[in-house]
Amino acid sequence: MKNRPLILVSNDDGIFAKGVKALVERLVNFGDVVVVCPDSPRSGQSMAITVNEPLRITPLPDYKGARMYQTNGTPVDCIKLAMHHILDRRPDLVVSGINHGSNASVNELYSGTMGAACEGCAFGLPSIGFSLTDHSHEADFSICNRAVDIVVKEVLEHGLPDGLCLNVNIPAIGSEPKEMKIAVPCQGHWNDEYREYTDPAGKKFYLLSGEFINDEPENENTDEWCLAHGIVSVVPTSVNRRIAIPSSLDWILTLPQVY
Amino acid sequence: MKNRPLILVSNDDGIFAKGVKALVERLVNFGDVVVVCPDSPRSGQSMAITVNEPLRITPLPDYKGARMYQTNGTPVDCIKLAMHHILDRRPDLVVSGINHGSNASVNELYSGTMGAACEGCAFGLPSIGFSLTDHSHEADFSICNRAVDIVVKEVLEHGLPDGLCLNVNIPAIGSEPKEMKIAVPCQGHWNDEYREYTDPAGKKFYLLSGEFINDEPENENTDEWCLAHGIVSVVPTSVNRRIAIPSSLDWILTLPQVY
Repeated sequence: MKNRPLILVSNDDGIFAKGVKALVERLVNFGDVVVVCPDSPRSGQSMAITVNEPLRITPLPDYKGARMYQTNGTPVDCIKLAMHHILDRRPDLVVSGINHGSNASVNELYSGTMGAACEGCAFGLPSIGFSLTDHSHEADFSICNRAVDIVVKEVLEHGLPDGLCLNVNIPAIGSEPKEMKIAVPCQGHWNDEYREYTDPAGKKFYLLSGEFINDEPENENTDEWCLAHGIVSVVPTSVNRRIAIPSSLDWILTLPQVY
Repeated sequence: MKNRPLILVSNDDGIFAKGVKALVERLVNFGDVVVVCPDSPRSGQSMAITVNEPLRITPLPDYKGARMYQTNGTPVDCIKLAMHHILDRRPDLVVSGINHGSNASVNELYSGTMGAACEGCAFGLPSIGFSLTDHSHEADFSICNRAVDIVVKEVLEHGLPDGLCLNVNIPAIGSEPKEMKIAVPCQGHWNDEYREYTDPAGKKFYLLSGEFINDEPENENTDEWCLAHGIVSVVPTSVNRRIAIPSSLDWILTLPQVY
């Protein structure tokens, strides 16, 4: 009997987040699921790894037939520990999420959810990150069901090219979106990124804050445009930084090769 | 009188690392230097940001004419705090390093040094990360001097294209390298990434370890090939994940747009 696909799951909101449970409930229909998540929220961890600190793996009770583990590491640590010390065979798919909050546009760079997906990709595995544009603990993830089912089914069937993973964002529009679109990451930035406070001793401290500024609101090809129009955005993302040198960088070829 | 260039410096080895001091000693010849570094080593932090925790900025005594600040944040936090709360004008250049240890090949993805450079790039600033392939605290950074001078001078003069920064690795060959080369990030991976231990209570824990495996040792265009041959590697790196969809991903265009 052919093995069912093995699906490795992680996230950055931690093992007890509602989003990862909602994801597991869909994925158990597609294969054997092993979940390895941080033991607490690790948002904004990007592709950070833990250096020089002991990492521990703790098994938890199964959830809907999925094997569950927590670690004290980052999302990328979770993928690495799973690959080297938890899984007994190579997974067919890595899925990260469902993140509580958008990872569209530049947020992808800082996202631990996408960090885990990118790490799966760096292992040469088809990898997907899912995010719902609702930060709340009690967000309604059921509206993600069909988008998750469609993308997971297709990626299990077709795979993904080396060095590419998918960043899927689902708009929290109060009901299930009925449309998805292949998109590019929107050009944008955060404005006024910190709020300034004064502590009781009179010293200043800062908390990350700010507002996202869309630098191309009219571009219908971006993930932000999709989300603003109630459409699921599917963004192919490269972790391969091997690029063609653009002609505007021609001067670099004149750097003294021997000096 | 025209302002001298303003150069923002960060790193991931912390404000007291020898590497950042060596870098500052070169950069003060090119402009006004402001250093904003983590207060302790933050290796492997990639583009991680600090969420929901208070960040503090502490001024330190000047070093060789450079203004010095430490923060309790990540390398990316340092760049963001500098841009929003320390600098009074937009810098002309962001330089990160000099890292104690290589950031060639896949290491670039996890590197806090390159995280800071990529964040400078995300701000639309010409940005460079420098690394020396010697992890030791007392590494001899003087062999980096000419490579740093050449690359900094050229980038100040020409700038860099939007979305591209430079990842410069310098081989610790015991004397000053005499050659540099434009290269691509080597395809490679880490093998056996954790060492397993047992604590006094009988529980297992893991420390990141492993050996780098070069998947293309004969490719003369890679950074690893340069370093193995005593050559400084200069790798243009993209933080813009907006990619052309390869033909092997054509199936994705058949995802049901309306479902």
